[in-house]
Amino acid sequence: MISGKNYIGNNLSGLNSKTYTTFNPQLNQANKEQFYEATPKEINEAVLLATVAFESYKKIAGSKKAEFLNSIADEILALGDLLIETYCKESGLPEARANGERARTIGQLRSFANLVEEGSWVEATIDTAQALREPAPKPDLRKMMLPLGPVVVFGASNFPLAYSTAGGDTAAALAAGCPVIVKSHPMHAGTGELVASAIIKAAEKTGMPNGVFSNLNSSGIDVGVQLVQHPQVKAVGFTGSITGGRALFDEAVKRDEPIPVFAEMGSINPVVILPRALEVDSEKWAKTYAGSITLGAGQFCTNPGLLLGIKSAMLSSFIQRLSQEIVKIDPTCMLHPNIYESYKKNKQTSFSQSGVEVVADYSPTVNNNYAKQAVVSVDGATFLKNTTLHHEVFGPYSLVVQCDHAKELELIIATLEGQLTGTILTDTIEAKDYTDVISALSNRVGRIIFNGVPTGVEVCPSMQHGGPYPASTDSRFTAVGVHSIKRWIRPFSFQDWPNELLPQELQNENPLQISRLVNGNHTRNKI
Amino acid sequence: MISGKNYIGNNLSGLNSKTYTTFNPQLNQANKEQFYEATPKEINEAVLLATVAFESYKKIAGSKKAEFLNSIADEILALGDLLIETYCKESGLPEARANGERARTIGQLRSFANLVEEGSWVEATIDTAQALREPAPKPDLRKMMLPLGPVVVFGASNFPLAYSTAGGDTAAALAAGCPVIVKSHPMHAGTGELVASAIIKAAEKTGMPNGVFSNLNSSGIDVGVQLVQHPQVKAVGFTGSITGGRALFDEAVKRDEPIPVFAEMGSINPVVILPRALEVDSEKWAKTYAGSITLGAGQFCTNPGLLLGIKSAMLSSFIQRLSQEIVKIDPTCMLHPNIYESYKKNKQTSFSQSGVEVVADYSPTVNNNYAKQAVVSVDGATFLKNTTLHHEVFGPYSLVVQCDHAKELELIIATLEGQLTGTILTDTIEAKDYTDVISALSNRVGRIIFNGVPTGVEVCPSMQHGGPYPASTDSRFTAVGVHSIKRWIRPFSFQDWPNELLPQELQNENPLQISRLVNGNHTRNKI
Repeated sequence: MISGKNYIGNNLSGLNSKTYTTFNPQLNQANKEQFYEATPKEINEAVLLATVAFESYKKIAGSKKAEFLNSIADEILALGDLLIETYCKESGLPEARANGERARTIGQLRSFANLVEEGSWVEATIDTAQALREPAPKPDLRKMMLPLGPVVVFGASNFPLAYSTAGGDTAAALAAGCPVIVKSHPMHAGTGELVASAIIKAAEKTGMPNGVFSNLNSSGIDVGVQLVQHPQVKAVGFTGSITGGRALFDEAVKRDEPIPVFAEMGSINPVVILPRALEVDSEKWAKTYAGSITLGAGQFCTNPGLLLGIKSAMLSSFIQRLSQEIVKIDPTCMLHPNIYESYKKNKQTSFSQSGVEVVADYSPTVNNNYAKQAVVSVDGATFLKNTTLHHEVFGPYSLVVQCDHAKELELIIATLEGQLTGTILTDTIEAKDYTDVISALSNRVGRIIFNGVPTGVEVCPSMQHGGPYPASTDSRFTAVGVHSIKRWIRPFSFQDWPNELLPQELQNENPLQISRLVNGNHTRNKI
Repeated sequence: MISGKNYIGNNLSGLNSKTYTTFNPQLNQANKEQFYEATPKEINEAVLLATVAFESYKKIAGSKKAEFLNSIADEILALGDLLIETYCKESGLPEARANGERARTIGQLRSFANLVEEGSWVEATIDTAQALREPAPKPDLRKMMLPLGPVVVFGASNFPLAYSTAGGDTAAALAAGCPVIVKSHPMHAGTGELVASAIIKAAEKTGMPNGVFSNLNSSGIDVGVQLVQHPQVKAVGFTGSITGGRALFDEAVKRDEPIPVFAEMGSINPVVILPRALEVDSEKWAKTYAGSITLGAGQFCTNPGLLLGIKSAMLSSFIQRLSQEIVKIDPTCMLHPNIYESYKKNKQTSFSQSGVEVVADYSPTVNNNYAKQAVVSVDGATFLKNTTLHHEVFGPYSLVVQCDHAKELELIIATLEGQLTGTILTDTIEAKDYTDVISALSNRVGRIIFNGVPTGVEVCPSMQHGGPYPASTDSRFTAVGVHSIKRWIRPFSFQDWPNELLPQELQNENPLQISRLVNGNHTRNKI
């Protein structure tokens, strides 16, 4: 059952007279549940509960946190069909996608559970005392990672489960030992409440402190801004637009005590198509990219929005093939009429730019909110001088830039904003002739792909999801994979601390048998 | 020989007609060398050279970087007495301190050389492909750390060697693969130029690209601000005052592309004196703290500026002893008349606050710029309501707060700003009765010390030097120890990249034999 209320810790609360609804883009009509905007009082209460909860939660053993995270996963599964139905009616995404994303969300929660259960993630580092060292004795120093404090998470419109309420940011922060306050995404407030109820159930079942999790509703920006401004909030996670992420970043850095914001924002994910790829595999790549560009109505942060090649008959023929392939694909529904309208508007803006040739534009009539895919083409000089063309068109759209030569290609890459990913289509031999292009691309991205597509973000420790600004606000962290826990922790040193008073992770006996760096050597041994 | 010019890469340049001098606080007179303020043209040239140098420097093998860092250490030693004399005449610090600080600087450079020579610092993480995985094949993903790009370093007035030109920030950034532009500290511009000349010699001898290092002079804030605003600068390191660090942070975060700033700023390093310590060791602690408060004229970022105890006859007697001990110590020279004047002014401000009792105030006549130590005392309620008393008084000064009870002590700790260190004087049994106090203290600091003094920052992997704001602008990093390299690097993933095109660190054969996380296991084995 969806109440429309906020979770202030374990309690439902709906003090506001102001409410809003979600929207079913497939039916093109509002859903019936009313959601209560969180009030300043509710916001403050959620943060204060989180602050108090932090004092006990930060000390809870890894095995207990693992229990909590696994229990969240179990409770999400226990929501059953209601969750899937709510997801679909609030996002317009198909059931298969809902199931896939739920599986990913569960997988993320369990991978963080494994991480904290094993325990070595705290990066325990020990340098033992040397009483006789000259000119001065060396103290005993022991360092480990501690949680930052209450974290605010803003969910993504395009991932109602995996990057929202119990998504990657929340799972990482809870694993770190940080209480989480979610600012629920208004487009899927019902999905958010259901998942929040699962988290609260899990918290109660596993004995977590009240306030370890709260879920606040809001259709606008005020609630989010108030959360980021709250002195007791210590870090922020965000997935969404550049405008939204930057606005929160700006709020966070002007506080008396600035706090870290990790915002994963827009990206056009440049794909460099080198001659050899077109010589050998033009047809394959045309089909593959038609699929990648239209995947999920182009609503992935890793959508390939920019294809870069060097002018040739082969490139022309590739563009033609891509155009033919892409219009064969049936359009699908976008997440919300607002997103659909933005897509239409941004696509038209791109079409109307001087020098832009529209090479594919799906024309048959489709349902409301179904995105018609498009591909446009420009030459390198035009792209270089018109930065409007550098902006993301969120949807099933891609721009092909036909460069005069490799130097222009390199220059274009160097002038791009930061990106989540870059891709090269080539072969091993040709790649060696394009080291400068590859080097330039690697400066602009967080992940580089060889002969593939950028869509599809594997959840594993070697994944980097984040990149130079504005792909993310801090390229030194990832939003995906267990290393994303590093966003919410800080190193902390104990000097000459008595063994029995140390956290278990740092005690001589190494009772948790974690891997530690002891006097320069990685070991699981006792001291 | 000191030219007074800027190093723009390998070349000396002094285009400006505006010059300034350094000052000898012991003699109370200006030194004779003239230093040329860097011009906007010189600033821009230094950054552009760094940008170009980055393209080759980022790819240089760890063993070559190690050679460079070790060569810097050698060239600094080769500067011989001239460096020590210049250091002393620009800082007023004694020769023994100069020698000690040089040894520390050399040690830091060599420890980073060892780190990059060994190579595992790149945190290589590999998840191999699983072609048959369901529902979709798993790609091959390999992640390692890459340098951010050109880094600007602002040196500290109080560490002309170890936290300045070739200090910790520079050594860490060069080790990471980032070119460095130093904004030389105006108080020790001659020391800075000498060290810069050593870095340039080392760069030339070991074949590093021109622009891998530049050294810019400036007596004001304009040069620093221009550097931080430059679009090609990718990160900033700073050690100094809260005002200075925050100003640079504010510039950095309002750029179109915000960049990370790690500023290590002020701290008053609270020391909690629990009853048991006073019962057993009152005299020892009085002597020890008299020494720690006056060490280096109190000009350490870890100076104990705040002592917190619970009202008792024992505490009163400790305060009396501390006061007696501290006035026995001979005052020493401060770094600069401006710093001396600030100290006098801040001390007087503290003396004049309502409720403040001056318990020690060194009175005999001393040389110019010699700091007279002082200890003042207030009760907890007074301290809580007057935040002026929470501010750092940079110099040989400490404030004792006499709390009514443990709860007030805890409340005071919770209201403190972020600190580099916190210290507890107690014993193992008593500490267990004060877990809430210790927990509150740990929320506010980066390092916690048991029965010791906060002064003395060991350079080792388990050191955390940094803490919640304003101790530093990002508590997630340290400024000291080899882990400080993490400030200047970002994770980068290669997806399905051909083995022969990968950096050596990620190749199947593991030619560098580094420790890697391969499919979840730490190993130095081949794949």
